[in-house]
Amino acid sequence: MAKRYMEVACRKQSLVCLAADRSTMAGLNQLIDEVGQHIAALKTHVDLIDDWTAESWAAFCTKAQTSDLLIFEDRKFADIGKISRNQMAGIYDIRSWADLVTAHLISGPDIVDGLQAGWTDVNRHGGVLLLAQMSSRGNLLSPQYTTLVVEKGKAHDGVFGFIGNGSRPNELRDLRKAVGEGKMIWTPGVNLVVGDGEMGQRYGDPAQAVAAGSDCIIVGSGIHKAENPAQEAAKYAAVSWQALQMR
Amino acid sequence: MAKRYMEVACRKQSLVCLAADRSTMAGLNQLIDEVGQHIAALKTHVDLIDDWTAESWAAFCTKAQTSDLLIFEDRKFADIGKISRNQMAGIYDIRSWADLVTAHLISGPDIVDGLQAGWTDVNRHGGVLLLAQMSSRGNLLSPQYTTLVVEKGKAHDGVFGFIGNGSRPNELRDLRKAVGEGKMIWTPGVNLVVGDGEMGQRYGDPAQAVAAGSDCIIVGSGIHKAENPAQEAAKYAAVSWQALQMR
Repeated sequence: MAKRYMEVACRKQSLVCLAADRSTMAGLNQLIDEVGQHIAALKTHVDLIDDWTAESWAAFCTKAQTSDLLIFEDRKFADIGKISRNQMAGIYDIRSWADLVTAHLISGPDIVDGLQAGWTDVNRHGGVLLLAQMSSRGNLLSPQYTTLVVEKGKAHDGVFGFIGNGSRPNELRDLRKAVGEGKMIWTPGVNLVVGDGEMGQRYGDPAQAVAAGSDCIIVGSGIHKAENPAQEAAKYAAVSWQALQMR
Repeated sequence: MAKRYMEVACRKQSLVCLAADRSTMAGLNQLIDEVGQHIAALKTHVDLIDDWTAESWAAFCTKAQTSDLLIFEDRKFADIGKISRNQMAGIYDIRSWADLVTAHLISGPDIVDGLQAGWTDVNRHGGVLLLAQMSSRGNLLSPQYTTLVVEKGKAHDGVFGFIGNGSRPNELRDLRKAVGEGKMIWTPGVNLVVGDGEMGQRYGDPAQAVAAGSDCIIVGSGIHKAENPAQEAAKYAAVSWQALQMR
């Protein structure tokens, strides 16, 4: 999956994943139409779509594929392996369309095997991004916790990479050192307007994040709340790509 | 919600929550019909039901209410507060029928506010059970982590209680000391046949779990895989209730 991501990123010259924070199918489809050519991946929360149906979601996934995008379901799986495997199925059937999913390692490494078994059940491949850092207030991902996640995650073939926080470049640089070059680091919390943010969220600069070792910047409101999302997405793509060349 | 649970438990003379590990609506409904009178709560994974529809689920919830049962969705929420609030809605609309949900505190205490806001959005009340201990292999809920979860959870009105592991009575006793009497402790991993278990799972004794401080024993295969589930559920109810009287 790392190879596939880098191929898409190269074709588009973009390390941008758009956090598609829309609650309707029309909103999601519009986002792809507007900015699809500038982004390498799309981060979804399938369970937040008010008018979700299996048919409309299938159409959306086809559109994403046509637009040469990885689909990244930010499910934050956090149960034991056996349950997580089954949670990949169900009504949403995440295993059948997600290329990447997030998981906490809190319940133990068997969760990665469970999620991989979910993909195998439908003859697909996918990658797990483990939460290594978060920026939310009072979170319990201590440096010790992060170290354990990285240690266990590095050793696991089913792990695509780690979620590292983009708002603190120094911590991100430390994370890159710990991770090495064998796994991805994807980073939410970046915005060209640093410091801007809803509900006190602190953003980091995209170029700084890539310089510090990020392989993909996850951008939400910075793109989808812009007056001209396509133009803004192109900017993020250019900045991220340039920062990669200079790394 | 603690008051409501204790009222149900008293009426049924049972501290038993059945882990309803069935993947069809018919299987779930059958379980309630068979053992409903002996259990105080039913633990669900709504996203594991293969033939889920909004209508069939509504009928199931009505049946649970008629059977005087709390519905406990073991979702293991693990995102930030704002996302978790929205995850209570969506297709499954958990906020509209769950009396209790599980959450990890890993992303910070705002998750509890988010989940409570979800219930408030539909004028309902509910309680959050925080994962304080797990028994899964290689889990990262260290004693330090458990201490932090208990500390933050005790101080939060929206927290109904904690999930503590039933297979190690000594650890459960320590958890009860840390929690005090202000919050619930619910315990999975119990079975009348101690040591029995799928995939190497180790079970604890229900009477010992209650003696050690458990307010509710969560029983799965011990009941639903029995030849006579009703008879077995009655046994678990009697054992748990007797242990409570002797505590």
